Amino acid sequence: MLHSCVTLSQSREPVPAARLAELHGTPPAYTAKHLQALSRAGIVHSTAGQVGGYILTRSASAISVLEVVHAIDGDQPAYRCTEIRQRGPLGIPETQCTRPCAIARAMTVAQNAWSQALARTSIADLATDIDSDSNGTAMADVRQWLSTP
Amino acid sequence: MLHSCVTLSQSREPVPAARLAELHGTPPAYTAKHLQALSRAGIVHSTAGQVGGYILTRSASAISVLEVVHAIDGDQPAYRCTEIRQRGPLGIPETQCTRPCAIARAMTVAQNAWSQALARTSIADLATDIDSDSNGTAMADVRQWLSTP
Ligand code: FES
Ligand code: FES
Repeated sequence: MLHSCVTLSQSREPVPAARLAELHGTPPAYTAKHLQALSRAGIVHSTAGQVGGYILTRSASAISVLEVVHAIDGDQPAYRCTEIRQRGPLGIPETQCTRPCAIARAMTVAQNAWSQALARTSIADLATDIDSDSNGTAMADVRQWLSTP
Repeated sequence: MLHSCVTLSQSREPVPAARLAELHGTPPAYTAKHLQALSRAGIVHSTAGQVGGYILTRSASAISVLEVVHAIDGDQPAYRCTEIRQRGPLGIPETQCTRPCAIARAMTVAQNAWSQALARTSIADLATDIDSDSNGTAMADVRQWLSTP
C-alpha cells in the first residue's frame, strides 16, 4: 500500500482502485481493501461517480510511512505481555500490576524506536528515493502512465 | 522466555525445564520447546542426568534481549518486500533490482532501530528492573524458591 500512496502522490486527479491494481500488479480485491483502510485512516479520500477513485487527503510530505503502516496493520503493540508475573508460586497480585512489567517496557522502548524511524519518513521521501533508484525517471513514468487512459 | 532467562540468571545450578514452567505458570511443553531454541542459539546449556536442566552459557549482562528474541522468533526481517517494483506495465527487470527497494530500505532502517534498542538491554538489566518494580525482593524470592526443592 505504500506503493499506492507513492503513486497517488503523483496525481492531482482521483485514481480508480483498478488502475492502481493494474499498475502495481496486485490483486484488485486486495488493493481495494487496503485503499478502504487508508480511507478510514484519513490518508486517502474516495470520490464517487464516473471519475471515481482515490486521492491523497494532504501533501505526500505530510503523510508518514508510519501512518500508512498503522492504517493497514493496525497500531497494536507487536509485543503482548501475558502477565507471567502474576502466575505461579511467586505470582504478584493483579492489583499490584499497575504499570507494564519490565519486559513489556523494554519491548515498548524498542517499538517506539521503530515507530519514530517510520514517522520520520514520508511518502514524499519514498517517491524521491524511488526516483533516485531509477535515475529520476520513475515518477515521471508514473505520471505519464496515469495520464494515459 | 525472557522470564526464564531472568530466572536462570539467579541460579548457579542447572534448573529443570519443569521447574521453570512451574515457577512461571507456563505450559511445560511450550517451556521445553523454547528452552531448546535457546539452547540451539547458545544462550543456555543443557545438562543431562539427575540434576539435568538448563543454565545460562554466560553472564546475564552479556546476553541481550535481542539475542533471546531472535532465538525464539527467528531473525528474519519483519517486513517482506514482494518486489512490486518488478510487476505491472512499469515493472523493472529483475536484473536491475540488485539492491533492496526504497520501501524495504525504509522498513529496514526502522527494524534496525528496534534491534539496536533490544541489543542495548541485557537479561541482567531486566533482572534489575524487575527488582526495582518489587522494591528489591523479586530476585531474592526467585533464588530462595529455586534453592527449595
Ligand atoms: S509479565 Fe512477562 S512480559 Fe510482562
Ligand atoms: S518493491 Fe515494493 S516493497 Fe519492495
